[in-house]
Amino acid sequence: MAFKSFPPPGSPPGVLEHRAGRQTYPSRLCLIWYDGDRLEENANANAEDFLKYQDRAGIRWLHLEGLEDLTLLQDLGAQLGLHVLALEDVVEGRAPVKVEDYSDYLFIVSRLPTDLEEFQDEQISIFLGADFLLSVQESHIDHFAIIRERLRHGQGQIRQHGADYLAYTLLDFAVDSWFPILGNLGERLDQIEDRLLNEPLGQPTTELQGLRRQLLRGRRLMWPLRESINYLLHHEGVLISERSRIYLRDCYDHTFQIIDLLENYRDMASGLIEVYLSSLNTRLNEVMKVLTVIATIFIPLNFLASLYGMNFKTNVSSWNMPELSWPFGYPFALGLMLIVALAMVIYFKRKKWI
Amino acid sequence: MAFKSFPPPGSPPGVLEHRAGRQTYPSRLCLIWYDGDRLEENANANAEDFLKYQDRAGIRWLHLEGLEDLTLLQDLGAQLGLHVLALEDVVEGRAPVKVEDYSDYLFIVSRLPTDLEEFQDEQISIFLGADFLLSVQESHIDHFAIIRERLRHGQGQIRQHGADYLAYTLLDFAVDSWFPILGNLGERLDQIEDRLLNEPLGQPTTELQGLRRQLLRGRRLMWPLRESINYLLHHEGVLISERSRIYLRDCYDHTFQIIDLLENYRDMASGLIEVYLSSLNTRLNEVMKVLTVIATIFIPLNFLASLYGMNFKTNVSSWNMPELSWPFGYPFALGLMLIVALAMVIYFKRKKWI
Amino acid sequence: MAFKSFPPPGSPPGVLEHRAGRQTYPSRLCLIWYDGDRLEENANANAEDFLKYQDRAGIRWLHLEGLEDLTLLQDLGAQLGLHVLALEDVVEGRAPVKVEDYSDYLFIVSRLPTDLEEFQDEQISIFLGADFLLSVQESHIDHFAIIRERLRHGQGQIRQHGADYLAYTLLDFAVDSWFPILGNLGERLDQIEDRLLNEPLGQPTTELQGLRRQLLRGRRLMWPLRESINYLLHHEGVLISERSRIYLRDCYDHTFQIIDLLENYRDMASGLIEVYLSSLNTRLNEVMKVLTVIATIFIPLNFLASLYGMNFKTNVSSWNMPELSWPFGYPFALGLMLIVALAMVIYFKRKKWI
Amino acid sequence: MAFKSFPPPGSPPGVLEHRAGRQTYPSRLCLIWYDGDRLEENANANAEDFLKYQDRAGIRWLHLEGLEDLTLLQDLGAQLGLHVLALEDVVEGRAPVKVEDYSDYLFIVSRLPTDLEEFQDEQISIFLGADFLLSVQESHIDHFAIIRERLRHGQGQIRQHGADYLAYTLLDFAVDSWFPILGNLGERLDQIEDRLLNEPLGQPTTELQGLRRQLLRGRRLMWPLRESINYLLHHEGVLISERSRIYLRDCYDHTFQIIDLLENYRDMASGLIEVYLSSLNTRLNEVMKVLTVIATIFIPLNFLASLYGMNFKTNVSSWNMPELSWPFGYPFALGLMLIVALAMVIYFKRKKWI
Amino acid sequence: MAFKSFPPPGSPPGVLEHRAGRQTYPSRLCLIWYDGDRLEENANANAEDFLKYQDRAGIRWLHLEGLEDLTLLQDLGAQLGLHVLALEDVVEGRAPVKVEDYSDYLFIVSRLPTDLEEFQDEQISIFLGADFLLSVQESHIDHFAIIRERLRHGQGQIRQHGADYLAYTLLDFAVDSWFPILGNLGERLDQIEDRLLNEPLGQPTTELQGLRRQLLRGRRLMWPLRESINYLLHHEGVLISERSRIYLRDCYDHTFQIIDLLENYRDMASGLIEVYLSSLNTRLNEVMKVLTVIATIFIPLNFLASLYGMNFKTNVSSWNMPELSWPFGYPFALGLMLIVALAMVIYFKRKKWI
Repeated sequence: MAFKSFPPPGSPPGVLEHRAGRQTYPSRLCLIWYDGDRLEENANANAEDFLKYQDRAGIRWLHLEGLEDLTLLQDLGAQLGLHVLALEDVVEGRAPVKVEDYSDYLFIVSRLPTDLEEFQDEQISIFLGADFLLSVQESHIDHFAIIRERLRHGQGQIRQHGADYLAYTLLDFAVDSWFPILGNLGERLDQIEDRLLNEPLGQPTTELQGLRRQLLRGRRLMWPLRESINYLLHHEGVLISERSRIYLRDCYDHTFQIIDLLENYRDMASGLIEVYLSSLNTRLNEVMKVLTVIATIFIPLNFLASLYGMNFKTNVSSWNMPELSWPFGYPFALGLMLIVALAMVIYFKRKKWI
Repeated sequence: MAFKSFPPPGSPPGVLEHRAGRQTYPSRLCLIWYDGDRLEENANANAEDFLKYQDRAGIRWLHLEGLEDLTLLQDLGAQLGLHVLALEDVVEGRAPVKVEDYSDYLFIVSRLPTDLEEFQDEQISIFLGADFLLSVQESHIDHFAIIRERLRHGQGQIRQHGADYLAYTLLDFAVDSWFPILGNLGERLDQIEDRLLNEPLGQPTTELQGLRRQLLRGRRLMWPLRESINYLLHHEGVLISERSRIYLRDCYDHTFQIIDLLENYRDMASGLIEVYLSSLNTRLNEVMKVLTVIATIFIPLNFLASLYGMNFKTNVSSWNMPELSWPFGYPFALGLMLIVALAMVIYFKRKKWI
Repeated sequence: MAFKSFPPPGSPPGVLEHRAGRQTYPSRLCLIWYDGDRLEENANANAEDFLKYQDRAGIRWLHLEGLEDLTLLQDLGAQLGLHVLALEDVVEGRAPVKVEDYSDYLFIVSRLPTDLEEFQDEQISIFLGADFLLSVQESHIDHFAIIRERLRHGQGQIRQHGADYLAYTLLDFAVDSWFPILGNLGERLDQIEDRLLNEPLGQPTTELQGLRRQLLRGRRLMWPLRESINYLLHHEGVLISERSRIYLRDCYDHTFQIIDLLENYRDMASGLIEVYLSSLNTRLNEVMKVLTVIATIFIPLNFLASLYGMNFKTNVSSWNMPELSWPFGYPFALGLMLIVALAMVIYFKRKKWI
Repeated sequence: MAFKSFPPPGSPPGVLEHRAGRQTYPSRLCLIWYDGDRLEENANANAEDFLKYQDRAGIRWLHLEGLEDLTLLQDLGAQLGLHVLALEDVVEGRAPVKVEDYSDYLFIVSRLPTDLEEFQDEQISIFLGADFLLSVQESHIDHFAIIRERLRHGQGQIRQHGADYLAYTLLDFAVDSWFPILGNLGERLDQIEDRLLNEPLGQPTTELQGLRRQLLRGRRLMWPLRESINYLLHHEGVLISERSRIYLRDCYDHTFQIIDLLENYRDMASGLIEVYLSSLNTRLNEVMKVLTVIATIFIPLNFLASLYGMNFKTNVSSWNMPELSWPFGYPFALGLMLIVALAMVIYFKRKKWI
Repeated sequence: MAFKSFPPPGSPPGVLEHRAGRQTYPSRLCLIWYDGDRLEENANANAEDFLKYQDRAGIRWLHLEGLEDLTLLQDLGAQLGLHVLALEDVVEGRAPVKVEDYSDYLFIVSRLPTDLEEFQDEQISIFLGADFLLSVQESHIDHFAIIRERLRHGQGQIRQHGADYLAYTLLDFAVDSWFPILGNLGERLDQIEDRLLNEPLGQPTTELQGLRRQLLRGRRLMWPLRESINYLLHHEGVLISERSRIYLRDCYDHTFQIIDLLENYRDMASGLIEVYLSSLNTRLNEVMKVLTVIATIFIPLNFLASLYGMNFKTNVSSWNMPELSWPFGYPFALGLMLIVALAMVIYFKRKKWI
């Protein structure tokens, strides 16, 4: 877990440093400038390239992948006037999902899944200004290729809107990326359910606990994301236009759907554990009933057989096991056993055990 | 589950497209125009028919069944000035239950049950404008036949009120449709309870978990429905008249009753699981007690019988099983057994096991 | 359960009709007019009698028992200007506990217990106007005899105050009527607790679940009642005088006490179930320990006895059970058994099982 | 429980009457008048003595012990202008913990413990006016001796402040009195924990349930007390001075500490029950394992021994138990048994049961 | 536990006294005066040294370690105008985590861990004035050495900001100090999890309960800390500058992370207990199944063997155990046993027990 690398208490805030033992990737800055008509793209920009577009209207989208080069981030921060605490959050990569208002710009933190199987994810940090958007991610996974594509071809309304719409697009992407993970989790739950029906004692608790933990993590991630989007929805300021709010409302609905699914799965997982434990109990009852029925029928019979296996000498006196010398001694013994067994069976029948 | 067909992250919003693998039904538009005196009905209208009534006072109710023909929906949206995100919600059919205010009209999403046995339902989308109401459903189930009937015959006050009252009527219908489902669920719970009394080990957990899951789904559906109606109740705007609000309050009460029933059933289901598990435990105790009593009485007896079945040669020395040659050896052995058995019985009596 | 008779979805609101299969009682209207000095009473009034007192100052209390005659209720509604939706709530008899403000009058719904043993109750509906109060109950149980008595004899302050004080008196009655029920429930819980101490395996779960369900019902009834009284306490309007508010505060305290008792009992019931299950487990442990101790001591002994009961022929070779011919064979066998038994006992002592 | 003596529903409010079956103590009124310099005390005052100090500045503290003499209370109420509903709350002695604002005075209800072992307590009612404080308790336990002492000797700031500070002093006393009770509860929990470690099957559930119930009671008492103090802290009015508020804040912190302790103990009690149940389960497993190992090893051995104890006649044919006549029949049988036993032991070793 | 030393109820507030039985450490006052350029430090100051810097701009930080010398604290309080109730909170050392506004200064209470293994901690009290900060701790652990170091070398912005930034630095330290504790707890949870996988019956409940209790304590400490920082964030007043608020927001995020970790661990601990109990149940089932299979197969066989070990005299009549004299009696008996055993095995195979 990540907590071991927390900075020692008392270290000064706002220092950009890599966490010990954390993998970093080479930094790559991609700069896209666009307005309704034109789009210019520089896939390998430096911090100064940003200045070229300063006097031109239109939106500048800076996307930084990899945090190896902290100077680049620092330069960007200086150019755009970003607060060093926000930059520290970007570098540390474990800020809570949130929106912070720095008046000139909004600092939005969300998380993107990096692995469909496990609830692995990385931080995506967005600085939304009036005419620029800086997004930072840690890995080199090309999450936003599809959005660049939409920008290039002017698909949908993305080129007609401002930077706030671009921020919405990224956030919407961040939200929707969780659906495949959920689909995956749902399938695993379904598999466990199927397995449990066929093989009721398959000990699924450990696996279900693992899933539950992931669902709880998802929940703890999704609720602040929802709150963040709600904050943007009701943010009073010029950075979010009225037109974009309606789109954010749609994005808000998606978080609602995800939370709904998460709750569903949580109920399902809890339910499966309960079903498992209850079937364990039922099974134990059944096992014990079989043992008890067999044992309690045969134990008295066995006693009778042992009784007539005793070696008391019948010739010493007529008190000593005279049954052994009866002509019908054996049938008598068998009959006795039959009666005892029948009585037992009737008793169990009455108790509805057999 | 439906999550598998969520649009891939990054796709542009506001695109009307059918979800992959989802069944659609042919589109059929029914247009009803009415005021207090007259009513005109066109069961197979097209988007332009709507315009005919533009200059006439009165209410226009457009009801669209089936979403195969997305162009029809798009045309309707253009005519009525509906936002494309709302239309996307209509087409996708899995929007959360909600009310959205687009100033000129309200967009209301609710759900209608399509199957009495299972908690199957479909989305019903309502656009409420000042003088029109557009309702859209996916299937061809004729939910609202009774309401059209009431409109035609001017039953109740439905023709005297505006479009808001019609919206209330549809919402009220959507709420009341859940009562039969609940009745059904209640009956199944009663059946399980009866069965559990007769046959305490019938393993009802799986079934009860299923019911519980449906109840939770009902709850997750009903709470936002209640909130939506509450929102309409307190909505400040001209679209909802003061007169209709009193009726919405009645509808609000119904959601209250449904939630109350759902909670009741949830308690009942949880209680039944607890009763079941507890009776499993009691049963196990009883079984174990019978086994223990029988076994612990007979095991020492059996030992005694086996003891005197040993073949030590009595003629070698007088130390070797002299009991076998006693004249009253056998009665002595039987007496010993009786004493042991009685001691055990008294012990168990004291422990209140028998 | 009552849900089976819910009106079919889509039926028009505000229609006064008896629910199918519900018992109704003949309607009887009692009219009492009073002011500080005088009181006139008509135990068998009709809707028009009400008009006689229209011009006279003072309070008119109309109390309707039985709902067979819906016309009477309708006439009363017309005379007093009551909304048809409120009247529908009265007739249906399953409205949630609530207060509704219709500006000219308040519509208050509460519930009165009709049976001390079970949580059976009926709806009591109160319309509180400036100078009149209409109360409606379904059954002929004479709940309010004592209040009429207080009115007739001018006991307490009841004749000095307005209709709001009369409404408070009825509500206070409705709240206080639950105390005997709670006393009853408490006694049953005490009985179960006593029984559980004497006879720990008496399977009280089903009964406790029943009680718990009733307590939950009480809770679901009492919380909205509390909220309703709170609403009246803070209602801004002329219908509730400042002087009566202090009395309502007292009534509010009583709901607090009832909820406190309900919570107490709920904890008690849950605690009893836990104690029961835990004592089941303890008992099972004890039973198993006895079985295990007896069985594991005697099983090896029995084996030894059976061993020396084998019939290998000692005359064939000196390898065949020479023990049988030892002069001290039998004492040797007994000694062996004793040693085994002692070893077992010591083992169990060490494990603290005996 | 106290609910049995609730007044019958419908009885008029504001009547001062003793609850049936409740013990009352003789009434004793103690009047203390003080200002910064002087203090006069009358340990056996009557209602009129109060008037003597009417014209003199300073604070009058009336403390009434015992409620036998309801006339005295009524006279006091009349002199001080107290509402009859508040007096009724005083007499009944089961009002919820609360603060009520009667504009001229505040009516504060709290509870004082009367027994260190059990959660026994009595109501303490405080009427706080501008220049007087009336406190009423039911029993003759001299709770406030220490406060009178502080008044007499002018210890601390108590003589420099107004009646509000005196009220704070009493409330602070009422809060702090719960600490010893909590200490007691904590010790009992510690004892149970110790006992559970030594003797894991000591069935502590009933006792822990009792403690839990007391902790819940404490919680239900402490939360409204906290709310009451918070109400006083933020009460807008002249009765509470700014200077006294800081002291009330301190008292508020104490309720916080008590609630924290209560929560702590509740967790502890729940944890102990869980530990107990889990150790029951572990123990049962251990017991069953021993039984199973012993039984499954010896049962096959026993069978073999019984087998060779059969009496088939070897002289009839060579098919009948030829082993009995083998020279090494007995060693063969013993060897067989050894092999079976070893196989079993190896099997259990592999399963890690032994 | 600490509750035993609570002051007796009724003792006057605002008295500085050591709690009985509590260890105190010698008092040592360290005074640091600094502004952007200069820094003066007196590691062994007395209360009057403070006055020297009264006329000079800049920040005075007084740090008091150890509370043996209450006069020193009292003098400091007098010099700085601190309220005696706040000082009492400092001396008692068990005030809840809180912020109190005394207009001229803020009184902040937090807690610092003193032991990495256990959740041991001590109170740290901070008085934040316009140009001074007084911090008090009980022990001599030199928590803040690193912060003094930063001050001396002017690292970060600490010398450029006011006393509010210093307060933030201390609070941030107090928050971050909990991370190593959490790391420790997390490691112990991981160890328990590993152990549980290898040795499923290791009875981890007691240890997990202990961890859970510590996690709950952490939670009860962290929530009010979070609220306190939130209070400072939104505090309206001159004591907290706008510039410092951004840093407090960062500190607020850290509490968020800690609470998140705590919740994580709590889920983990609960999950481990569930996994343990479920594996206990599974294990019991397995054990019982083995016992049942072995016992129910051999019990009937044993009975048959005992049966033919009976000593009925075959020479008395042909009814007495004629099987013993059959030429193939023994093979017949063995065959019978084989059939019974096979039937049993097939039965168990069908039931999927083996």
